[in-house]
Amino acid sequence: MGGVHPPISRTPEPPYTAVIFTSTRTQGDHGYARMSTRMDELAAEQPGYLGQESAHEAMVGITVSYWVDHDAAAAWKQVAEHLIAQERGQSTWYADYTVRIATVERDYRMPTSAR
Amino acid sequence: MGGVHPPISRTPEPPYTAVIFTSTRTQGDHGYARMSTRMDELAAEQPGYLGQESAHEAMVGITVSYWVDHDAAAAWKQVAEHLIAQERGQSTWYADYTVRIATVERDYRMPTSAR
Repeated sequence: MGGVHPPISRTPEPPYTAVIFTSTRTQGDHGYARMSTRMDELAAEQPGYLGQESAHEAMVGITVSYWVDHDAAAAWKQVAEHLIAQERGQSTWYADYTVRIATVERDYRMPTSAR
Repeated sequence: MGGVHPPISRTPEPPYTAVIFTSTRTQGDHGYARMSTRMDELAAEQPGYLGQESAHEAMVGITVSYWVDHDAAAAWKQVAEHLIAQERGQSTWYADYTVRIATVERDYRMPTSAR
């Protein structure tokens, strides 16, 4: 988890696309950690990739990936190696998940004076 | 963190608003855990609240709250007790954060057959 990207993405001015992936896991790793790292790396190589943020607790994981537009996010969903990971996710790794595709219209960072 | 809400929110049909709050923490608790639980409870009482998802690791925390529209999310930002928490967040709890306000246009859940 994390590792290949900074914890908070430095995204450009809105609008851009956010894909919010919230999941609960099954027991055990079953190759999940290795796949997760690989998918992080592969996502970062895709056209239109802007960044990714993720945090995982025992009960729940959230990954938000950022893209120049919905088309770029949709194209990443169809990348062959990612399709295999999605299939494995349904059969093995995830107990449940929800994916939300959103347009970020406004954003702001902590004031410089407070950082 | 979590506790008052299910790990994955059951939101209505899009469109609705998502507020993505990604943060890195300073060292130590300094009342953070207590504030976090209180803010979770208080958010859930606000008009237009649809749900909240959060996951925290050592390095990074992500909280996504869902609202009927941007106005409902903006109103929550201005609730007095929440303003105090935001101030304390800047002075004490957070090393850095970014807030993104987005419109969720599409969502889907894991297929029933795989759950």
